Amino acid sequence: MTTTATMSDRATPSVAPPPLNPPERLLMGPGPSNPDPRVLAAMGLNPIGHLDPYFVETMNQTMEALRNVFRTRNHHTVPISATGSAGLETIMMNLLEPGDSAIVCVIGYFGQRLAELARRAGADVRTVEVPPGEVVDPADVEKLFAERPAKLLAFVHAETTTGAYQSIPEMVEVARRYDALVAIDCVTSLGGVPLEIDALGVDAAGSCSQKCIGAPPGLGPITIGPRAMAAARARKHKPSTWYFDLALLFQYWGEDGANRTRAFHHTAPVASIYGFHEALRIILEEGLEARWDRHRTAHDTLVRGLDRLGLSLFPPEANRGPTINVINVPAGVDEAAVRRRLLGMGVEMGGGLGALAGKVWRVGVMGYNAQVPRVERFVGALDEALRAEGYSA
Amino acid sequence: MTTTATMSDRATPSVAPPPLNPPERLLMGPGPSNPDPRVLAAMGLNPIGHLDPYFVETMNQTMEALRNVFRTRNHHTVPISATGSAGLETIMMNLLEPGDSAIVCVIGYFGQRLAELARRAGADVRTVEVPPGEVVDPADVEKLFAERPAKLLAFVHAETTTGAYQSIPEMVEVARRYDALVAIDCVTSLGGVPLEIDALGVDAAGSCSQKCIGAPPGLGPITIGPRAMAAARARKHKPSTWYFDLALLFQYWGEDGANRTRAFHHTAPVASIYGFHEALRIILEEGLEARWDRHRTAHDTLVRGLDRLGLSLFPPEANRGPTINVINVPAGVDEAAVRRRLLGMGVEMGGGLGALAGKVWRVGVMGYNAQVPRVERFVGALDEALRAEGYSA
Repeated sequence: MTTTATMSDRATPSVAPPPLNPPERLLMGPGPSNPDPRVLAAMGLNPIGHLDPYFVETMNQTMEALRNVFRTRNHHTVPISATGSAGLETIMMNLLEPGDSAIVCVIGYFGQRLAELARRAGADVRTVEVPPGEVVDPADVEKLFAERPAKLLAFVHAETTTGAYQSIPEMVEVARRYDALVAIDCVTSLGGVPLEIDALGVDAAGSCSQKCIGAPPGLGPITIGPRAMAAARARKHKPSTWYFDLALLFQYWGEDGANRTRAFHHTAPVASIYGFHEALRIILEEGLEARWDRHRTAHDTLVRGLDRLGLSLFPPEANRGPTINVINVPAGVDEAAVRRRLLGMGVEMGGGLGALAGKVWRVGVMGYNAQVPRVERFVGALDEALRAEGYSA
Repeated sequence: MTTTATMSDRATPSVAPPPLNPPERLLMGPGPSNPDPRVLAAMGLNPIGHLDPYFVETMNQTMEALRNVFRTRNHHTVPISATGSAGLETIMMNLLEPGDSAIVCVIGYFGQRLAELARRAGADVRTVEVPPGEVVDPADVEKLFAERPAKLLAFVHAETTTGAYQSIPEMVEVARRYDALVAIDCVTSLGGVPLEIDALGVDAAGSCSQKCIGAPPGLGPITIGPRAMAAARARKHKPSTWYFDLALLFQYWGEDGANRTRAFHHTAPVASIYGFHEALRIILEEGLEARWDRHRTAHDTLVRGLDRLGLSLFPPEANRGPTINVINVPAGVDEAAVRRRLLGMGVEMGGGLGALAGKVWRVGVMGYNAQVPRVERFVGALDEALRAEGYSA
């Protein structure tokens, strides 16, 4: 014992944050879902320079694998170096400019976001809106086209807030009749349900890395078809974004044909691309059809489980899809308390967003988590949490 | 032996790319540099939801740690969910709008990029340009302010293409006299050299994750001071970018004071934030002053080594800094052949960009690589590569 000041008395308190020790979670919310462990392992591979010949080859392989996942031969197919919303911003900022007109279908929050992106790109935007759970009738889109032309029709394939799927072929047909481009948000569908960009005739599509693709959030995979690229090239003015300017991006990722020289643009997120490459590799090893079947099987398991618990799905049956499942909160149940309890058990599900806040839960059956044992665990845990909160079927 | 078709004859050829197996590299180019292995390990920690209470706390810790690294109390300090250039686009797109005027100093390629970002934001841009290696005389900036006012003065702190450092205090002084905001690109300086945002009076600064911070590329750390936030809030029109809109970003990351509710914006790149959090933690454990000293010591080791090899630095001594070292290619040496040979030995250095292409090499002494043994290996390998290409000092 001493009264002399010790080192620790005088030491500056450390300003460093504590080490991370995130809990283990089964991520059954609307995203992110758990990546395949192979994807996380790939992200820790040897870091290399973004202009290294090995990385340039990795970029080429990633583009080609992503084309196969989108079922497209579009050269202009890349993961944007930002998250899924940024991929959609890239599409809107390049395909639209002030003076252009766009029609946007709004079946939920993410349709509203598409409309907002189009407005910020300077376009005159008309929307077709329907109540939550419903989808747009192509005839209502046709009416707007008949009133006056639009350069672009945009809509969300799987609306993450309502669980409703908008069927694509009829929308493309209408847009084609009026010579408009078609852009889709397939954030919650790509890799989990049948989606074939070229066969459908979709001109531009944007998804994300962290749902059915099975990588962490951080990349915005997009594909841009020849008609859309021609429209981007025919712009009167450069887009106001430099970071998402397709012309600059493909000077970096490489243009098609002879011109394969790469000009520096930004520095690609090397570790994220490693993980994304591995995620695409896993998809193509499994095969898209097998993967779609697996999502359907896992979804069916979920639906049977919910049925046993006396829970119902929010959207009408005709509008449902396997990847995002929006569940009605039963009367008298504290929905936030159930989610908190479930999280305490290591299982995440999502609450409602926007108009459906407090009224629904959102359950993703996506990517690595679209496996029967994982869904069974989810249903079992939900059952426990519901009973603990006083609910019985 | 049989003539019957076997399975393999009929199997569809796999479209999956081969597994990644990137080579081990010492990354001594202008970036990315090798992350600390602890950072890569952190990226593989348990994935969690981006609205999980644990992740919200991780976001808060990341903001606070980043403030400490920027030496600022600016609440509005975050890693943008995209690469370093996107952080600078965020600053320009929010602080400038059509009708605004900006003065941008151009001492190399990255100054030109700042000017381009400002132009795309719709501003009337005037530049002060100097030949490569030189820096701008604040008196020349003052002349432009005296001609007519500008809302913003922007410049690059450490110009990655020429190796020249622009001194900050004199520039801030000029801008303050004309009541203009000051925005800096500190992509190649933050974490490697003394840089104290609040003490300097800088209003907005953007850096990257993959240089002196020591994480992989993928995030754009920015800090926005109160004057700059006030200017962003006083805009006449929303910025054309939704993804980089500061108002929306801070509804998600959280505003200061009472309003800590978080509204969904995009999905944060969880794994990248884990790695970035760990990189900041390493910096603050080491202490900024100790880290600056380490960069200086490693740089001095490099300079002594280059001197022994008879190589000289491109920028005048007064303009040099420790992190980015631009070296004159000696007469008669095939610079690309030297870089290729070095890469074959597992060591990356950069070539010249823009006006200096073919004339210089660029060597980064940054982050985890700013260690004497790593610099010694670099110098030894460069010596070998130069001799193999027929050069002798």
